[in-house]
Amino acid sequence: VFDLFTFGETMLRLAAPHQQRLEQVTQLDVQVGGAESNVASNLARLGHQTGWFSRLPTQPLGRMVSRAIAQHGVDVSSVRWVDDARLGLYFLEYAPEPRGIHVLYDRKDSAMSQLTKDELPYDAIKQARWLHLTGITAALGASCAESVSAVIGFAHEHGVKVSFDVNYRAKLWSPEAAAATLAPLCAAADVVFVAARDAQALFGTQSIGIARDLSARWGNTVFVTQGDHPASACAGEAEVEAAPYTTTIVDRVGAGDAFASGVLHGLLSDKALEQCLRYGLALAALKLTIRGDVALVTRQELEEIVARKTSSAPRR
Amino acid sequence: VFDLFTFGETMLRLAAPHQQRLEQVTQLDVQVGGAESNVASNLARLGHQTGWFSRLPTQPLGRMVSRAIAQHGVDVSSVRWVDDARLGLYFLEYAPEPRGIHVLYDRKDSAMSQLTKDELPYDAIKQARWLHLTGITAALGASCAESVSAVIGFAHEHGVKVSFDVNYRAKLWSPEAAAATLAPLCAAADVVFVAARDAQALFGTQSIGIARDLSARWGNTVFVTQGDHPASACAGEAEVEAAPYTTTIVDRVGAGDAFASGVLHGLLSDKALEQCLRYGLALAALKLTIRGDVALVTRQELEEIVARKTSSAPRR
Amino acid sequence: VFDLFTFGETMLRLAAPHQQRLEQVTQLDVQVGGAESNVASNLARLGHQTGWFSRLPTQPLGRMVSRAIAQHGVDVSSVRWVDDARLGLYFLEYAPEPRGIHVLYDRKDSAMSQLTKDELPYDAIKQARWLHLTGITAALGASCAESVSAVIGFAHEHGVKVSFDVNYRAKLWSPEAAAATLAPLCAAADVVFVAARDAQALFGTQSIGIARDLSARWGNTVFVTQGDHPASACAGEAEVEAAPYTTTIVDRVGAGDAFASGVLHGLLSDKALEQCLRYGLALAALKLTIRGDVALVTRQELEEIVARKTSSAPRR
Amino acid sequence: VFDLFTFGETMLRLAAPHQQRLEQVTQLDVQVGGAESNVASNLARLGHQTGWFSRLPTQPLGRMVSRAIAQHGVDVSSVRWVDDARLGLYFLEYAPEPRGIHVLYDRKDSAMSQLTKDELPYDAIKQARWLHLTGITAALGASCAESVSAVIGFAHEHGVKVSFDVNYRAKLWSPEAAAATLAPLCAAADVVFVAARDAQALFGTQSIGIARDLSARWGNTVFVTQGDHPASACAGEAEVEAAPYTTTIVDRVGAGDAFASGVLHGLLSDKALEQCLRYGLALAALKLTIRGDVALVTRQELEEIVARKTSSAPRR
Amino acid sequence: VFDLFTFGETMLRLAAPHQQRLEQVTQLDVQVGGAESNVASNLARLGHQTGWFSRLPTQPLGRMVSRAIAQHGVDVSSVRWVDDARLGLYFLEYAPEPRGIHVLYDRKDSAMSQLTKDELPYDAIKQARWLHLTGITAALGASCAESVSAVIGFAHEHGVKVSFDVNYRAKLWSPEAAAATLAPLCAAADVVFVAARDAQALFGTQSIGIARDLSARWGNTVFVTQGDHPASACAGEAEVEAAPYTTTIVDRVGAGDAFASGVLHGLLSDKALEQCLRYGLALAALKLTIRGDVALVTRQELEEIVARKTSSAPRR
Amino acid sequence: VFDLFTFGETMLRLAAPHQQRLEQVTQLDVQVGGAESNVASNLARLGHQTGWFSRLPTQPLGRMVSRAIAQHGVDVSSVRWVDDARLGLYFLEYAPEPRGIHVLYDRKDSAMSQLTKDELPYDAIKQARWLHLTGITAALGASCAESVSAVIGFAHEHGVKVSFDVNYRAKLWSPEAAAATLAPLCAAADVVFVAARDAQALFGTQSIGIARDLSARWGNTVFVTQGDHPASACAGEAEVEAAPYTTTIVDRVGAGDAFASGVLHGLLSDKALEQCLRYGLALAALKLTIRGDVALVTRQELEEIVARKTSSAPRR
Repeated sequence: VFDLFTFGETMLRLAAPHQQRLEQVTQLDVQVGGAESNVASNLARLGHQTGWFSRLPTQPLGRMVSRAIAQHGVDVSSVRWVDDARLGLYFLEYAPEPRGIHVLYDRKDSAMSQLTKDELPYDAIKQARWLHLTGITAALGASCAESVSAVIGFAHEHGVKVSFDVNYRAKLWSPEAAAATLAPLCAAADVVFVAARDAQALFGTQSIGIARDLSARWGNTVFVTQGDHPASACAGEAEVEAAPYTTTIVDRVGAGDAFASGVLHGLLSDKALEQCLRYGLALAALKLTIRGDVALVTRQELEEIVARKTSSAPRR
Repeated sequence: VFDLFTFGETMLRLAAPHQQRLEQVTQLDVQVGGAESNVASNLARLGHQTGWFSRLPTQPLGRMVSRAIAQHGVDVSSVRWVDDARLGLYFLEYAPEPRGIHVLYDRKDSAMSQLTKDELPYDAIKQARWLHLTGITAALGASCAESVSAVIGFAHEHGVKVSFDVNYRAKLWSPEAAAATLAPLCAAADVVFVAARDAQALFGTQSIGIARDLSARWGNTVFVTQGDHPASACAGEAEVEAAPYTTTIVDRVGAGDAFASGVLHGLLSDKALEQCLRYGLALAALKLTIRGDVALVTRQELEEIVARKTSSAPRR
Repeated sequence: VFDLFTFGETMLRLAAPHQQRLEQVTQLDVQVGGAESNVASNLARLGHQTGWFSRLPTQPLGRMVSRAIAQHGVDVSSVRWVDDARLGLYFLEYAPEPRGIHVLYDRKDSAMSQLTKDELPYDAIKQARWLHLTGITAALGASCAESVSAVIGFAHEHGVKVSFDVNYRAKLWSPEAAAATLAPLCAAADVVFVAARDAQALFGTQSIGIARDLSARWGNTVFVTQGDHPASACAGEAEVEAAPYTTTIVDRVGAGDAFASGVLHGLLSDKALEQCLRYGLALAALKLTIRGDVALVTRQELEEIVARKTSSAPRR
Repeated sequence: VFDLFTFGETMLRLAAPHQQRLEQVTQLDVQVGGAESNVASNLARLGHQTGWFSRLPTQPLGRMVSRAIAQHGVDVSSVRWVDDARLGLYFLEYAPEPRGIHVLYDRKDSAMSQLTKDELPYDAIKQARWLHLTGITAALGASCAESVSAVIGFAHEHGVKVSFDVNYRAKLWSPEAAAATLAPLCAAADVVFVAARDAQALFGTQSIGIARDLSARWGNTVFVTQGDHPASACAGEAEVEAAPYTTTIVDRVGAGDAFASGVLHGLLSDKALEQCLRYGLALAALKLTIRGDVALVTRQELEEIVARKTSSAPRR
Repeated sequence: VFDLFTFGETMLRLAAPHQQRLEQVTQLDVQVGGAESNVASNLARLGHQTGWFSRLPTQPLGRMVSRAIAQHGVDVSSVRWVDDARLGLYFLEYAPEPRGIHVLYDRKDSAMSQLTKDELPYDAIKQARWLHLTGITAALGASCAESVSAVIGFAHEHGVKVSFDVNYRAKLWSPEAAAATLAPLCAAADVVFVAARDAQALFGTQSIGIARDLSARWGNTVFVTQGDHPASACAGEAEVEAAPYTTTIVDRVGAGDAFASGVLHGLLSDKALEQCLRYGLALAALKLTIRGDVALVTRQELEEIVARKTSSAPRR
Repeated sequence: VFDLFTFGETMLRLAAPHQQRLEQVTQLDVQVGGAESNVASNLARLGHQTGWFSRLPTQPLGRMVSRAIAQHGVDVSSVRWVDDARLGLYFLEYAPEPRGIHVLYDRKDSAMSQLTKDELPYDAIKQARWLHLTGITAALGASCAESVSAVIGFAHEHGVKVSFDVNYRAKLWSPEAAAATLAPLCAAADVVFVAARDAQALFGTQSIGIARDLSARWGNTVFVTQGDHPASACAGEAEVEAAPYTTTIVDRVGAGDAFASGVLHGLLSDKALEQCLRYGLALAALKLTIRGDVALVTRQELEEIVARKTSSAPRR
């Protein structure tokens, strides 16, 4: 019954408004965001049936997270509510260079980080066409990593395809530790999303031909983003490339998730590799203009942007 | 599959902040609210399966309404999306006496006011234990009134119980017109909610014994609220009364809907008449302390308040 | 007694703050704006006697509109107050490309759209040196279009000069319908303002030489703006061109009205065609840096910018 | 041509929001207010022709003041614009007792405090039915006090009636200095407004019978307010009393000016003494529910409140 | 060199604005507060030399805490900065009854909770006249409780007087556990502050005569507060009582700390027991009118309130 | 005991938010800022002992200034508190060109402008390694200029080094008057900071080689900034140049003070001339990304930026 099911940690995002430093704020902007729930929300908005699982604390902040995801039409009925637990938080400050963006995590010992593989909603998962996972969950601890590994096996047994977004977070683990854990997970997935800089840091690729290299290595489909440079995808013989849309960034958080969501929208709609890549780039560009983690767009808006792109040269 | 299904108009509420006059605002607070969706949302939060239907315009304001209701877990999948339509609005200004509260409706020709009875989601309705209706829908025009009348018959045919909240709105129609339309609808319902002042203005009751009078007249269960005075309920021989909880009002909009929701929570939980009345009063009191139309409380919070009440004299 | 008189619809502008999507707002920024009242306000600020007429509903939003215009010194005493009417609204969301700016009109059946030509304040109009009209009024319905047509004749009979701003709005009518109605109105005016893209879409001009072409066609003075490209003006033999000022846009709404206001300031001050064009470009550039529809500048500020321009090459 | 003309100092009001202390604010709420311009604005809103004069600095804050007053329809064309001058300011913090309300004046050497009697707009004044003055202007310095004295004589010569609001400000001068200056001005006016506590402190009245005492002393009409206690008025033999309306205070600033405005509305409408007093109390009560210095009400709202009062016992 | 030294945990306070529920906020108000730093700040504002110690994480939130305390003139130079640690947080929602106020702690494993007795700044402490401690620190864990116990002994050895505020927190420990730990600490202090309800729950006192009872039991000076009821103090034979000031509450957090601060101000100024109690009640009342944890008042303001009180009957 | 001591005027900054014009604001953002206190605050944050002196009015705005500076660890104990005085203010509006930035001073007769040389805290000054002064203080009046001149002599007598920031303010005095007063002060200082355009306007330098020219003229060390162009420094034979860091400006106020602070950080740390210049440029660039006058950065952040710069070509 699900086009896509996913699970992961969704945190409270507490951001300093108006480019202030955290030190000086008198108010914090409150948002909710997590890589996996962003994908579930984005796809639900585009008309797909999606479900999301996590461990959430039985208190107001846990309910805020649940409601924020349910509002887009995502099924949250399998969430496991936990007493006496905490919700992961992160504090955020934006700034132009040379100051740059700072993230201050306060997510240790969160409810979701205590996940064990026995708690996963296997009944829901086996009813899904796709299972979407990310490297962030694997970074939350040994038990979480084990859960991710186990569920991939389960998915394959039940004919559920697996997409995996590498999503390397330097504040959570070293490149070496990440590579050791993530490489087999990538190899076991049907589709992998990875940023070029992470491919180089973790998997030792060159700076060009990354999609082809990793696709050959893992025998699956790989999508590679590269900031302002063209993104690429490779699936066996097929290999395509497309330039990102130009935009002015309003909020960059969630753009990678929007890219994955756009691609998955293409895959769920049985589109060709190039069209999938275009959906990904278009949804990522739209997300960059939107505050918050979720790409608050309609299917019609997405299609219009993609159509525009197809009929003309990329505006770069 | 539904514990309760309902339909009606949900509008954008544009309120002047900080007790300003509408004339002087530079910002308006945006909320979403409608009597029926409030009930569906309140009950979903308390753990019941609810569904809501309306006609919504296919544009951002329509989507805002749909999401605001879905976040609480209400099923909105039967909503009928309409192109080239408008969403009903109302502007609100709060003030102490002698200025008082002013509502400025701008809801004419809204998408929902064009409802015809053929558009109702009969498949969903017949799967519900209860169907909840209000007099507001009946006030939106002849076609809407006809739909309400028709659906009550349909409900009875399919064994669905009907609750009806009179909800008289003086800005929409005269007491005489309202009485002519609403009296037969009340008589056809299983449970009726009515404010004492409306009972007097529309149905010519005395100022006391209203619940008994109307219950006898219509042969059903009647709940009567009376502001700071005790509320009452009558079902055949059974007749109970209870004093409201004392509180300081933060936002009075939606308190009547919270009362109905609390009572329905009792009915859905097979509670006795007095306990149903207490749930209604407790949820209404909690709602009065909360900004927005919906009673953002948990079942546990409600139970605690009701338990407190039972074990001690009402604090008045 | 009036240097310029004008009439038209002024709406409530409800804008999503901080580049949010309308779907996600919890507050809306409230402004008041209309092409004609913007011109009246801008010119009143620069020291000219101006008057504005409209039909306004007798309720708080109508009063907000009236006060917002009167504060700049515009005479609003001829406004016709109408009971049981609504004020036109529009919702606005700003965003960078590829999302772009979205306007959601909710102006149908507004008080002003019901205008009949008998209601126009002819006594005030015949005391004016200039009457300013726009194509928006003509787009509001047959009765409005007829009013515009009739008042031009009246103006000519009483020696009142007429300026006309084409102001094509694609959300209100098709290019064909607009062209059929507006072409004779333009031909009847003494001065016409038109954006290059509208000239091409409605009147079939080439992309260059637009001012000369239309001026010849209509036998009057034509001002053409072209975004970042040089603006031009043609009056018989005289033809001038000038580059716009560079700026960063804070709020683009009302920039076209500021251009017309600047030009009219020049005309009212008996300046040469080139100087009029410069006033227009300078006031438009200043407006782009100001929130709201009105160019909140002083005559001295305007003169300083224009002087700066004259004494040096345009900064482009 | 003026029903009432007035002049005085209008300042920028910088208030600490949300009951904060000035020490801790990161934002200040900006309003504009002055006793005389409040009266002119209130009466213009009720349909009377009013004009206001002051000296204002030729800079943005001066323009803010002028626009804030003009928006209500007050004629500000006689304002004298002064270069290199400053606008008077005051900082305000609200709090419950025992902290109470604090006003911090920063108005020394303001443009208006430099007024000389030669600068007054005598042409405008002599065209007015009433001239309204306050004791605040007399407190701004010797030259200002002299101007007030001189203009009363001028008014009487031209058949202009004079109303005078004592408005004692302890932060500006001592009771003795105020009494010496204000007593002859009161005696020369046709109508005087005074608070009971000021009457006692300045003019040595008893705590009861104040209106009769002062009316006898000065041979004119005297209105006395007394907070929550009944207000009174005396004109020769006629003597009336009325209780104020109960309300919850949103913003108390300007309530005294609203009282004077209500009374003057009655006088301009040729109402009897008691009705004038009722208008004063009703407008003051409405003002107490409104943010800012001006009573943002309509004539219809005022009449409704007054009618309510007349037909029932005062709600106290 | 210090009049008073203190140490304890100071947290980030994240409060839902405008009486919203935490579930629904889009912004949180940010404050800093801790019982001990509040006392240090209050006394520094009144002219005393104070110092504060804590363990703070070396990141922006830690710096925010440090700066917020230093701004009042408190010496924070002995703070111990800790890498890879977290700052304690709490989320707060205000509401009228029956909803009431909710505190959601997220302070587990905070930097300060890891305190060991070896880290205390003994050099600073021995230079102080008074050392102020609270029961909150003792509740943070065994190591913290041990530190509090050890430092009292150290203080006595060096002739430093000790004040102790019981400050029982039901969310941190049970009454039994608290009583076992706190009773000996109270007995070892020179001055103890305790709320009447805590005295009953922890130390089994009657509901009256609490100060006398505990003072006799511990052989020291005891101050007891009792909400709206009179507060009392007992030191040997001396026993006094005084009624609190009436006020409207703006923010109740920190009122108990203000009471202790006021009393300590009296003790530091060598005032009699009754005057100390009055200072405590006056500072607490002022604090209740002020947003944030600190009593942002001047010594002059405090003296004025106390003087007012002395010369008249308490306003209750 | 002080690494650096300084004195000067610190004002309340009242800024129009969101690029509004002052005319249209309903709120003003409140900050505190002054060239000298900015330097003291910046250096205190970087770990140096600093002190600041000024004359402040004994009222809430004076206390706000004192606290804002003390929070960074600056010693403000020598501030002279003055009754019946006012605090200097300035109003600020930001805008893109052609509107540009406007400052409206309201600082006449401020407490600090009444400074006499007898009031300076000579005891504190003689305990400092450096005394920092600016041309702004010298511009506040004859008595202030005399104080600056006198204190330089005092500093030299006591072995205190003097840094002087020219900081020419065109709204306070003419280039000629400034040059006459400031040239001898510059010549008497050990280190001078000057903007290239001021050097040309006041001291008649060429547009290149300014640092060398002035260093030779005055026999001291001179630092010259030049906006986006490379900054330079010259001390006898030594002459260095470095390009500024690229950034996007969030708030430009205080960037010059941050430059001086960075340089002084280098001098206090005994760094070479080039490293001092780099510190200055790095701190200025960081400040440009931060709201408010103070460079809210840590020493570690500064060192990271400077290190980045050293190891790669300047990003320009």
